[in-house]
Amino acid sequence: MSIQKVENQVIIRNQAFIEKAEQLKPQLFETVVKPVSIVEVKEDSNVIHGWKAEFMAPASTLADTEYGKKDSFILDFGNHQVGYLTINIRPSGSPPDAPLKLKLTIGEMPVEMAEPFENYDGWLSSSWLQEEKIFVDVLPATITLPRRYSFRYVKFEVVDTSPKYRVVFENIECRAITSANINDVDSVSHEDTEIQKMDEISIKTLADCMQDVFEDGPKRDRRLWLGDLRLQALANYETLKNNDLVKRCLYLFAGVPDDKGKVPANVFIAPKLIADDTYLYDYSLFFTATLHDYYMETKDLATLKELWPTAYRQIELALERLDENNIVKDSSDWWSFIDWQEGLNKQTPSQAVLIYTMKQAIRLAKELNVPEKDLLKARLEEITVAAKTYLWDEKQQFFISGADRQVSWASQIWMVLAGVLTQDENKQLMNRLLIEKPTIGIATPYMYHHLVEALLVSGEKEMAISEMKTYWGGMIRDGADTFWELYDPKNKDFSPYGSHLINSYCHAWSCTPTYLIRKYNL
Amino acid sequence: MSIQKVENQVIIRNQAFIEKAEQLKPQLFETVVKPVSIVEVKEDSNVIHGWKAEFMAPASTLADTEYGKKDSFILDFGNHQVGYLTINIRPSGSPPDAPLKLKLTIGEMPVEMAEPFENYDGWLSSSWLQEEKIFVDVLPATITLPRRYSFRYVKFEVVDTSPKYRVVFENIECRAITSANINDVDSVSHEDTEIQKMDEISIKTLADCMQDVFEDGPKRDRRLWLGDLRLQALANYETLKNNDLVKRCLYLFAGVPDDKGKVPANVFIAPKLIADDTYLYDYSLFFTATLHDYYMETKDLATLKELWPTAYRQIELALERLDENNIVKDSSDWWSFIDWQEGLNKQTPSQAVLIYTMKQAIRLAKELNVPEKDLLKARLEEITVAAKTYLWDEKQQFFISGADRQVSWASQIWMVLAGVLTQDENKQLMNRLLIEKPTIGIATPYMYHHLVEALLVSGEKEMAISEMKTYWGGMIRDGADTFWELYDPKNKDFSPYGSHLINSYCHAWSCTPTYLIRKYNL
Repeated sequence: MSIQKVENQVIIRNQAFIEKAEQLKPQLFETVVKPVSIVEVKEDSNVIHGWKAEFMAPASTLADTEYGKKDSFILDFGNHQVGYLTINIRPSGSPPDAPLKLKLTIGEMPVEMAEPFENYDGWLSSSWLQEEKIFVDVLPATITLPRRYSFRYVKFEVVDTSPKYRVVFENIECRAITSANINDVDSVSHEDTEIQKMDEISIKTLADCMQDVFEDGPKRDRRLWLGDLRLQALANYETLKNNDLVKRCLYLFAGVPDDKGKVPANVFIAPKLIADDTYLYDYSLFFTATLHDYYMETKDLATLKELWPTAYRQIELALERLDENNIVKDSSDWWSFIDWQEGLNKQTPSQAVLIYTMKQAIRLAKELNVPEKDLLKARLEEITVAAKTYLWDEKQQFFISGADRQVSWASQIWMVLAGVLTQDENKQLMNRLLIEKPTIGIATPYMYHHLVEALLVSGEKEMAISEMKTYWGGMIRDGADTFWELYDPKNKDFSPYGSHLINSYCHAWSCTPTYLIRKYNL
Repeated sequence: MSIQKVENQVIIRNQAFIEKAEQLKPQLFETVVKPVSIVEVKEDSNVIHGWKAEFMAPASTLADTEYGKKDSFILDFGNHQVGYLTINIRPSGSPPDAPLKLKLTIGEMPVEMAEPFENYDGWLSSSWLQEEKIFVDVLPATITLPRRYSFRYVKFEVVDTSPKYRVVFENIECRAITSANINDVDSVSHEDTEIQKMDEISIKTLADCMQDVFEDGPKRDRRLWLGDLRLQALANYETLKNNDLVKRCLYLFAGVPDDKGKVPANVFIAPKLIADDTYLYDYSLFFTATLHDYYMETKDLATLKELWPTAYRQIELALERLDENNIVKDSSDWWSFIDWQEGLNKQTPSQAVLIYTMKQAIRLAKELNVPEKDLLKARLEEITVAAKTYLWDEKQQFFISGADRQVSWASQIWMVLAGVLTQDENKQLMNRLLIEKPTIGIATPYMYHHLVEALLVSGEKEMAISEMKTYWGGMIRDGADTFWELYDPKNKDFSPYGSHLINSYCHAWSCTPTYLIRKYNL
């Protein structure tokens, strides 16, 4: 996997926008969560990753045992948590005559408790693997770990005490943190328990990713990405309704455009607001999409007025990449995300994203009654015609992409979402797609979301539900407490990073079933 | 090595004594120390442990280099330090998109930088090996490590950053801590530079061990032992003169006797004053010796009066162990320290320690004019006669110890210090000892101190200096910045713990050359 590094990145900070974002900083709600049970993680070739957690004893019995050198145990907090750990430890035996050396391994999935982090050799930084080595010089002690973890399980390994004493663990707890107020969600009682469960886990996933900003994953990355934000915001409108957090995130992006006015694909918020040096064709356009959705939800005209120039600028910059035929130029050195599917050509899906967001921009321009709307409408017409002229393969009855005329799922899905064809044509295209199953498929829940939504806008509700049940339902059957960054029902060990240890098992872009269920009344 | 664990230990806390000790808590002096150089540690079979530190660059050039995954460097602070580390780190490259994972290895000797701690498999707790794994979630960062370290060298290993950024280390410093005021020491300018150097390193060793209490080793153990205290106090009177710290330590021991009145061999002071469940025949008697030396130095009659009952009680308890012949009973289940020499029988040296401390007790009883002095004098006479009758081997012209009539260095040395023989006989005995060199020799600097002092009280000043130059001078030639817990010039890898990694290289009981040099005008 390649990474983008921009030399000589110039950021034009908009201090007014940054301050507005700062004022919208959310309150964090805290909940004290106690571990539920002591578990063992055992090999089982029938479960995902080959490891399952097996109940051993209630966590309330933990203090009955004294732990010495090389002893260990695993606590199960019963559900996914994002927060801070506090551990009370008292000595037993002679006065402690040496420090306690303790290793903690903190994980979202049983596999993280079972496979040694030392063996990880993927290309993403091993620093994301959640572990600590702690020396406790004075016992008894209350240890409040300063770092935030994303986890369900915690493995405690007593590396060493001394021959003279052992230790007892008491009152271990997690101070769980979120800016989501779960009480704000209208509960739905669905007759289909699988759909009901998907709805619940979506909301839990969204809530655990809602911190100071909409994070992509509370375990790994922990930052604000535009593509993820768009989906989180959609799920949020149907459930938690923390619309000010969406507004804050829009202002964060608008606060750090580059010298051409382009918003970055993601931002960091500590130690201060920093634009990452990653720019993605589709993600920049999703600023416009996210502002559109926010306005449609809130009718917050003041924000629309203030952020419209930033949104419009993303369209202008995207239009600059069109060739003389009004087709997005393909090249080996440009960046559009779309999906992580190996070998995916990004040209046609990017063209579709442009059309999709231009339609939203036109709606916003109408609301604002600004002159840009006429230009947008004219250009949209040309670009849509171009898409049908140059990117539609009449013989194959599929959209093709790139010089090699690649037929991918992403191209069809995004063209359906962009509304390039008629409703009937969309329906036929989606049916053809699911029957013919082109090789260049779907890699992420992010793209699965778009598949399901494309089926829904094509009127294929049953097929949409079926795909959801296969995909997100599959995660649930495989033990998900929150929805995952990555899931391939046919290759459950898949990781684009070289190890499933480093995958994020609570990931924003996977939180959309609740949106799909509630928005489309599934 | 076996350890003592006492079941059903009953401590009678003397709150008035404990509060007096608390009031005498010393001020800690802080000095900011910067690293001097960047070094590499290289194999060299000619130096101790086979590793030497080689200068690479001044530490001031550190910030010129960016460090990425798997890069490392070693800082040399130029001398032994006891204190707290602060590290400033800034990122270089793209915005940090993953935490920094940093491993620190903190050591007193080059070997600690070279041989992996993971390989340590000795019986002392591996938790004493000074290392940290640190995750830095937000950069730039100022990291102030909360634990106190004892070190000269710090190895920094960048375990991981991310492919997008590297780090620069700036402003690394140590806040060095001691309760010793080095300015209080009268400097001596000795014509013999080796003696001059031994004096200086002794004082540095003593100062680095002077914290809240006289610690035995600032790297390992870090607690107050009576046997070490006695020697530290003697060195202190000749140099740093922090007599209140000696007084504090006496009150700490007197504050936590057991239900028979016996003081423990050592105490812990955090989280509160705790008597260890280790009791040693000789160490308990050294409470009396330390009070004697403290009074002779300070003439602090109030303290003598208050602590005399505790001191006298140690003699009474020691006398209870005499058999019908007035000889200390030997058995397989009693504990007297004397030395770590393998196979050493403790009977005769313990008898000598009893005689040695009874003489000091008599001097104190005279000062106080208490009736115990007559009983002590009568018993001393009997015990001294018994020693000469039952423990002196006329044929071998050595003191023997235990059922196997063991001839050890310790027995001869302590009997000389106890003054059982005449000055002439002492002189002959010490000469015989150094010529015949019995197999059961000396293991620690603690026992070497007593060898040298026994030579001095026997009038063998030149031999004493020669032994010091061989032993402490040997440590200096082998690179000591402070004197070590353990040193065997003939077996430089010696450790009673199974690894020289865990030895303490700044250890109180090794600090006495300054006392010997100054007290005896060497």
